[in-house]
Amino acid sequence: MSLVGRDLISLLDFDRRELETIFRTADKMQRLTRKCGSQLKNYVMATIFFEPSTRTRLSFETSMHRLGGSVIGFAEPGVSSVAKGETLADTIRMVESYSDVIVMRHKIEGSAKFAAEIAGVPVLNGGDGSQHHPSQTLTDLYTIRKEFGGIDGRKILLMGDLQHTRSASSLAYGLGHYKGVTLYLVSPQTLRMRPEVTDYLDKKGVKCVEDEDPSNFIDEAEVVYVTRLQKERFPDPKQAEALKGSYILTRGLLKRAPRNTIVLHHLPRIEEIPVEVDYTPNARYFQQAANGVPVRMAFLYLSVYHSKYRPVKTREPTPSGGATRCSNANCISNQPREPIVPTLSEVTSRGERVLQCQYCGRYTKE
Amino acid sequence: MSLVGRDLISLLDFDRRELETIFRTADKMQRLTRKCGSQLKNYVMATIFFEPSTRTRLSFETSMHRLGGSVIGFAEPGVSSVAKGETLADTIRMVESYSDVIVMRHKIEGSAKFAAEIAGVPVLNGGDGSQHHPSQTLTDLYTIRKEFGGIDGRKILLMGDLQHTRSASSLAYGLGHYKGVTLYLVSPQTLRMRPEVTDYLDKKGVKCVEDEDPSNFIDEAEVVYVTRLQKERFPDPKQAEALKGSYILTRGLLKRAPRNTIVLHHLPRIEEIPVEVDYTPNARYFQQAANGVPVRMAFLYLSVYHSKYRPVKTREPTPSGGATRCSNANCISNQPREPIVPTLSEVTSRGERVLQCQYCGRYTKE
Amino acid sequence: MSLVGRDLISLLDFDRRELETIFRTADKMQRLTRKCGSQLKNYVMATIFFEPSTRTRLSFETSMHRLGGSVIGFAEPGVSSVAKGETLADTIRMVESYSDVIVMRHKIEGSAKFAAEIAGVPVLNGGDGSQHHPSQTLTDLYTIRKEFGGIDGRKILLMGDLQHTRSASSLAYGLGHYKGVTLYLVSPQTLRMRPEVTDYLDKKGVKCVEDEDPSNFIDEAEVVYVTRLQKERFPDPKQAEALKGSYILTRGLLKRAPRNTIVLHHLPRIEEIPVEVDYTPNARYFQQAANGVPVRMAFLYLSVYHSKYRPVKTREPTPSGGATRCSNANCISNQPREPIVPTLSEVTSRGERVLQCQYCGRYTKE
Repeated sequence: MSLVGRDLISLLDFDRRELETIFRTADKMQRLTRKCGSQLKNYVMATIFFEPSTRTRLSFETSMHRLGGSVIGFAEPGVSSVAKGETLADTIRMVESYSDVIVMRHKIEGSAKFAAEIAGVPVLNGGDGSQHHPSQTLTDLYTIRKEFGGIDGRKILLMGDLQHTRSASSLAYGLGHYKGVTLYLVSPQTLRMRPEVTDYLDKKGVKCVEDEDPSNFIDEAEVVYVTRLQKERFPDPKQAEALKGSYILTRGLLKRAPRNTIVLHHLPRIEEIPVEVDYTPNARYFQQAANGVPVRMAFLYLSVYHSKYRPVKTREPTPSGGATRCSNANCISNQPREPIVPTLSEVTSRGERVLQCQYCGRYTKE
Repeated sequence: MSLVGRDLISLLDFDRRELETIFRTADKMQRLTRKCGSQLKNYVMATIFFEPSTRTRLSFETSMHRLGGSVIGFAEPGVSSVAKGETLADTIRMVESYSDVIVMRHKIEGSAKFAAEIAGVPVLNGGDGSQHHPSQTLTDLYTIRKEFGGIDGRKILLMGDLQHTRSASSLAYGLGHYKGVTLYLVSPQTLRMRPEVTDYLDKKGVKCVEDEDPSNFIDEAEVVYVTRLQKERFPDPKQAEALKGSYILTRGLLKRAPRNTIVLHHLPRIEEIPVEVDYTPNARYFQQAANGVPVRMAFLYLSVYHSKYRPVKTREPTPSGGATRCSNANCISNQPREPIVPTLSEVTSRGERVLQCQYCGRYTKE
Repeated sequence: MSLVGRDLISLLDFDRRELETIFRTADKMQRLTRKCGSQLKNYVMATIFFEPSTRTRLSFETSMHRLGGSVIGFAEPGVSSVAKGETLADTIRMVESYSDVIVMRHKIEGSAKFAAEIAGVPVLNGGDGSQHHPSQTLTDLYTIRKEFGGIDGRKILLMGDLQHTRSASSLAYGLGHYKGVTLYLVSPQTLRMRPEVTDYLDKKGVKCVEDEDPSNFIDEAEVVYVTRLQKERFPDPKQAEALKGSYILTRGLLKRAPRNTIVLHHLPRIEEIPVEVDYTPNARYFQQAANGVPVRMAFLYLSVYHSKYRPVKTREPTPSGGATRCSNANCISNQPREPIVPTLSEVTSRGERVLQCQYCGRYTKE
């Protein structure tokens, strides 16, 4: 099985066997990490980050360098032509002619999928809006697999802002590929996991329990995955302030977990994991961050090495007329200047007929 | 003929034979683009960008990496010592001791020429003010040469803001090296090509026609080169708003052009080329952007490979006293803290005696 | 003697023999500067700059590239997770897992020392607050050694804002390792060298003379080291304005110095060295800046080549209770969210008993 030329847009695009190939390659990369590689010598990776990032950008860059490759790009849109009003489509068409692989982060949902449709080189999604963060999830799954020897049957408590945290929904999509997983989704009532994600989990046979109190499940959880209440995702800052502090994994709470429970976090963490937890034997979030390098090296190697530029012939978008559109204003299909054909598919959610956007994945009622 | 150690400041500094050497080398580089090169291994290119850029900076960086070299630099002055008030001369003296070639973009006109006088390594102008953008023009000429087999005799319609667009005046300077070229200069009355450029075209025997309406020449043009009305270049934002939309190359207008006409643009484009034109067989602007890599690889290879550091002994500038100065406030010769001797030469423009600045190229009346 | 794995935090941590090893290696590196090296191939250097820099960052990056290595990082905190409120400790734990060496600049004093305690890879201090700037000082000492054949016995006039300029205190610490040095410390009364520095110089047998007027010593000085009055370091901008211009090394003043006196400056210089001095045979500041590359190459080579990651097991900080704390609000030990144990040591300063912070080095009275 070959992953040459593959994009990395969401965990929905991979199957269990492909994930295992990535993880086995990561095992090999980990052994090489501080030794020499030159598989990607003279290959160029473009990192185009429209939102700030440290971990994702730097770990992709290190991964490329460890394999002998080079990096171009920008870390914020202000220094690029985007400041002059260029569309994402035009930016991609330019960057693809300068590089062999593109890593992109963007606040618009579905933008990575759209970029991959246009680019003649692999596009790796470094996070788009509140939806996907696949290189983070590969790292998370790799860490769980390493700690427990496998992912099937794990009991995982996912807590925090599950509505807006892309690492959370992305992990949920990834766990759907494994058997017998139990997922405790713990969040404030107003910040629950989005229905398209829980519907997917139902369909995949993941046992989901939604609740507001982490202490109800802490004694069962083998993995506690903590996420931030990201203030910048709230429409109302007062709401952000009110919930601050509600979902903190204190050492007291952690003491009630099984002895070999591990604590994960996508980082950066602010106060949701107090520093005192760093000194417990359960903390694995720094190890998890470190695992990001072999995992990203693995994907870059599998996808980019020996890949060829494949020119893309896009067709002219036709106006959708009076058809129903995606109701998510932050979806790429609702950016008027981008040459995109919105696509909605009919699905059934809890007995009701809804339309699902093929770019952002969100439901739209007719 | 050798170009080792040559600066790239303006198209005025090259002759036709030198341009042909660059283009032939670019042909070779294009064949190598995604293969390995290590000619510039351990060479360091500094990209110092005092104005935002994506295309120019990233394509230079990719070109350097494809040749095995490395890159340092900054993408905006805010993160550098320039924020502390350092002169350009001091910045150049520092950067030249850290690198083998300097690529610079600056809003001050003539700054690249001044930098080249100080630096002991080649200086490549990534755009200075409204005057020169030679790596863009090499790319433009290379694209025309590739599409038509040559540049002599071409009929080229250049439209938009010809007064402030550096890609436009730079292209005009480049076309002056070829025979039998016809140039339709189409712009609003207030944004016509500057007189030092049209005087040069006259002297070089380029047939120039100035007009305000692109539809008068569209049926003759083999190349339609569209430029933006760059709002940031207007003194009055109302004027920018009023002219917005006047110089748009619609598909309707393009239909009246000859069948094999090509459309070029320096990019980023905003609304001056609607997306509908992307799907016509005439669009070449994305191909043109892609050509930027082999062209820049060619120049870097020819200029930097085997070049040696040549220390520059600058002489102390003497105060010019009551002599006439360049009247362009945005000229490097009018920056009081830079150690520069303004130089004006007497030239004749339309029968009148004028002084021309040797840094920014603009006319000053005595 | 091996420097493998060594941090570069302050000149206090090195002895004379170690400095000589660095300088001899720099001599070798200078001969190699524009030739190929691949000793650090596939090694990754992280440059994390929380304050703007050109010289330090770019010269470290060039040094790494000349040795065949790669670079990741950020040039301003705005594009990183620091903008989201991440602690320095967490940032370091992440970056150390992506790199083989970390170069850091930070406005908080003692931050580099703290980072080195946490990181499993060498940490090189690119400047922290007003205290240390060791890679600059190695460059300064190397320049003096090259010009005079040695540092012992030199007479050095250090002028400007000696209280806030880290290059000044850092140089003083470096000079303490040499014999028979005379140091003229010339500054406004309110901007004198800090007492912990002059106490150190006393203890080391450096002859110090403090004064307000550079012309009292100019005829004795073999080295005139000029520093800026850094406006951003003043609590009161009016004071900055009033002193502006008081400590300018004019050509007239320089004429009174011995014939072979050299003028140094850490750069960027603003008006404290007028451009006219550039054309005197005494100016060495541009040469000094250029020396930064072989010196940094030397340290990187000695410290990083063949270094191994050494995992650090930090212990949980315990609250200090009512104990005396460092009185410097800008000290890393006073950042409440960082997991740090403040440490004060008792020392005697001019007969008085004082407490000295082991992070920022400042005195605190009980």
